[in-house]
Amino acid sequence: MRAKDTYLDPRTANYVPLTPLSHLRRTAVVHPQRTSCVYGERRFTWGETQSRCRRAAAALHSLGIRPGDVVSTLLHNVPAMFESHFSVPMAGAVLNTINTRLDAAALRFILEHSESRLLLVDPEFRAVVAEATAGLRSPPRLVYVADTPAAWPCPSGEAEYEDLVAAGDPEFEWKLPDDEWEPIALSYTSGTTGDPKGVVYHHRGAYLNALGNWLEWGMPAHAVYLWTLPMFHCNGWCFPWTLAANAGTSICLRKVDMAAIPGLLRDHGVTHLCGAPIVLGMLVDALERTRQRPLAFMTAGSSPPAALIERAESAGIVVTHVYGLTEVYGPAAICVPQPGWQDKPPTERARLLGRQGVAYLLQHDIDVVDPSTGRSVPADAATPGEVVFRGNIVMKGYYKNPAATDAAFEGGWFHTGDIGVMHPDGYVKVTDRLKDIIISGGENISSLEVEEALYRHPEVAVAAVVAAPDERWGEVPCAYVELRAGSEVDAQTLLAHCRGLLAKFKVPRQVVIGPIPKTSTGKVQKFVLRERSRSASAIA
Amino acid sequence: MRAKDTYLDPRTANYVPLTPLSHLRRTAVVHPQRTSCVYGERRFTWGETQSRCRRAAAALHSLGIRPGDVVSTLLHNVPAMFESHFSVPMAGAVLNTINTRLDAAALRFILEHSESRLLLVDPEFRAVVAEATAGLRSPPRLVYVADTPAAWPCPSGEAEYEDLVAAGDPEFEWKLPDDEWEPIALSYTSGTTGDPKGVVYHHRGAYLNALGNWLEWGMPAHAVYLWTLPMFHCNGWCFPWTLAANAGTSICLRKVDMAAIPGLLRDHGVTHLCGAPIVLGMLVDALERTRQRPLAFMTAGSSPPAALIERAESAGIVVTHVYGLTEVYGPAAICVPQPGWQDKPPTERARLLGRQGVAYLLQHDIDVVDPSTGRSVPADAATPGEVVFRGNIVMKGYYKNPAATDAAFEGGWFHTGDIGVMHPDGYVKVTDRLKDIIISGGENISSLEVEEALYRHPEVAVAAVVAAPDERWGEVPCAYVELRAGSEVDAQTLLAHCRGLLAKFKVPRQVVIGPIPKTSTGKVQKFVLRERSRSASAIA
Repeated sequence: MRAKDTYLDPRTANYVPLTPLSHLRRTAVVHPQRTSCVYGERRFTWGETQSRCRRAAAALHSLGIRPGDVVSTLLHNVPAMFESHFSVPMAGAVLNTINTRLDAAALRFILEHSESRLLLVDPEFRAVVAEATAGLRSPPRLVYVADTPAAWPCPSGEAEYEDLVAAGDPEFEWKLPDDEWEPIALSYTSGTTGDPKGVVYHHRGAYLNALGNWLEWGMPAHAVYLWTLPMFHCNGWCFPWTLAANAGTSICLRKVDMAAIPGLLRDHGVTHLCGAPIVLGMLVDALERTRQRPLAFMTAGSSPPAALIERAESAGIVVTHVYGLTEVYGPAAICVPQPGWQDKPPTERARLLGRQGVAYLLQHDIDVVDPSTGRSVPADAATPGEVVFRGNIVMKGYYKNPAATDAAFEGGWFHTGDIGVMHPDGYVKVTDRLKDIIISGGENISSLEVEEALYRHPEVAVAAVVAAPDERWGEVPCAYVELRAGSEVDAQTLLAHCRGLLAKFKVPRQVVIGPIPKTSTGKVQKFVLRERSRSASAIA
Repeated sequence: MRAKDTYLDPRTANYVPLTPLSHLRRTAVVHPQRTSCVYGERRFTWGETQSRCRRAAAALHSLGIRPGDVVSTLLHNVPAMFESHFSVPMAGAVLNTINTRLDAAALRFILEHSESRLLLVDPEFRAVVAEATAGLRSPPRLVYVADTPAAWPCPSGEAEYEDLVAAGDPEFEWKLPDDEWEPIALSYTSGTTGDPKGVVYHHRGAYLNALGNWLEWGMPAHAVYLWTLPMFHCNGWCFPWTLAANAGTSICLRKVDMAAIPGLLRDHGVTHLCGAPIVLGMLVDALERTRQRPLAFMTAGSSPPAALIERAESAGIVVTHVYGLTEVYGPAAICVPQPGWQDKPPTERARLLGRQGVAYLLQHDIDVVDPSTGRSVPADAATPGEVVFRGNIVMKGYYKNPAATDAAFEGGWFHTGDIGVMHPDGYVKVTDRLKDIIISGGENISSLEVEEALYRHPEVAVAAVVAAPDERWGEVPCAYVELRAGSEVDAQTLLAHCRGLLAKFKVPRQVVIGPIPKTSTGKVQKFVLRERSRSASAIA
């Protein structure tokens, strides 16, 4: 069989571009009466969601938004944020979800760099937006998303989202992308150094990762998903699109308020939620007195410590550990549990489950490579290399940044910047960020290894280890620790604890107890701590 | 954002052709020790399956098989048949699975038309193959797949499959297809009239339908699947590839022997199986005295009758009704159950579940169109039209047959040749094959409607209604019926039963009780019955 016959080429009947918009389209037909989205007293069905998104897309079109234009959001996890994942691409536009914790300078950079034509914004952020857009040559048109029950009504005289939806043509002829490689979303990385980079997602990848989440997590149809993970973070790891495919229900949340969460879980019959281990920790604390029906929690950002996994399990929570970055649509690797792990002692089980694991079925490949040669490191759980991904759940590239794109894709792989080892069973373990390695007297110290030693102390809630400059050794590890509520353990005790677990040169020079700065998604801001260590050393 | 920047084009890092070979590749890494395939005393792991397929691919290459060549099989559901779904495309070749019930003439046509280079064949079919290939200009090379426990050893002096596997280079560098549109399989339709047509599948469609089966059926990971459905039939509805993705276990079966099946279900902990309603009926009969743990049965080919669904449920079997054709990779539509159906009376529930339903999530579209205008018929459950599909689970076309391909894809849809109606809830109901419509005195009679009336009689096991020529009316319905074991109901009783349910002109002219000819997949061979009715009328 030689495939030169052009009559066997793709045609309308047998080729449709892959796009998560198909997921919404099908669920609106098959499950029009199922609940799509709940927020406080508001409740929508999938039929309503499709029709609202269609109207919103029509309204965007009426406001001059054209295919390829960027529409940004500065929103909490509210229905309008959920709907934008469909309405914006239905208008052919690209969705840029902006982190709500950014300051005016970062916001200004993103709005300018992305050439955003329109910004859907919560009234809470009116002032920062005013500051960010002051004097911009082409400021985005602002549309406010009022939240009256939360006491954030639309500022008077301003355009409001519900008016937009109401005005949109209900018969608007939205269409699928012409090409599955067309951009669907743009996400700016938090960028601890230099300017943020704009990660571009395509429809094909969003379609596939939406299904990938469903398959990897073993979700049943019609999951009830609580939005503890910000939707601005890698498009909520693609879960708005997963839930459209799955015909599930999104329980929206303005803020992650742990006092309210046990009630929401119970009232809505929540089955699934996501977040950093810190969020899982807070959830477990909140649930310890009110055991729920089984809950599935997908966590990423750092390895869940052994003690946390155990406490989660006894609270009825099944923890799934995934790994990814903005550049791979959120999670793209998963620590698939193996038969027999269940029976291991807790510390061993946590060691196994704390690994980043294997590539998603739909991602194709993960590997650990020697940064100088690009070759796979041996699968000996010891030789460090850079963690790399390859497959269909990898970004198109960085917007308006060919140099950074070429660098990220060097050698045919996406380079994560994470240092890891390959275990003999094919599971990857991230040992550090490239920039988090501490080089002390010529020896590499993994900050993660030191953090894990600290986490093995039962009173440690959060641990972060960074390099502090040192005249003799070049760098030495410096530890920052948050204790569990009510704990009174002191730094000396923690140092002694570390001495029992670590080689002498790896033991932190000092342990600082107190609050640790974190990003809005719960990640420790190591660059702040690094700065703090540098200043402290300079002063000392 | 204008996507003209070529640095954002697909690269090795972010684009991999979709192919079900990726499913095997990943499962062999993540679940190397899990059981892939069981046949009698033989048992393989996924690690072994990948390594055997790699060797077999290498051996095919050594025998001169090159990308695009067709490799055929004439095999029962044995491990070599399962492995061929991977080894043949790993060699870049196209898998042509031939129906084992075909006669020498049909077999000869297929081998010649497909230009098969090699045929993997069960020794049981040695004689028919000899007849089919006698005098062929380029006969395929024969490789026998011995089945010594079943008393079918390799004929002496002939090449054997296990020798091939043993000789293959274990380090053979198989590769993914260069393009996801490349052919992966070729399946000849049974073709009740004219020559069989060769349906060509591509890697993209096989990848997607493998996932589609998993998602639609709500399979858990690691399903245990019993092969009651022939793998030669639309590549076993793509389930070899589904099971690779799902890291499930295939329980192979040389013959569907209902006496042996309850034991296999129990011994292997079978969770899932597929087949025509007739197979489901036999299974229910076989299980009635030995209730099993819950089983999921996916059925297609005709609507499961109400009584059968009820009996299946009380035997602990959950029935999923799907619909498709060879041209859409097997099932591509599903009757998704809705909340509330569970509480309906059995007849009403069977009516709802007996519909063909909605397109698979990954298929995109199903519709019923007016054959003359190509427009959608109204969703009134009454206006007949032709059932059409569109999406990524539609064949490339018919091999070496541009005219039939163009006809099948007319107007941008794949035309099934089935007549159906669209219900107000968006569910399609097939009412007849285009060629099964009986036109009596200018009125259309749906043979399916008459069959359903017959099925409502509790003693009817199989019913088939065809047109018989009639001088006065042009055509009249003629019914063939198989009774349940032990029944002694007569034709007059069944006619009276029909009169109570059907308009007078739809009541069969005669009811013939006795065995009904069926294809190897359990489909009634209506062309045989039609022939029989014609002869009977001629004689009468």
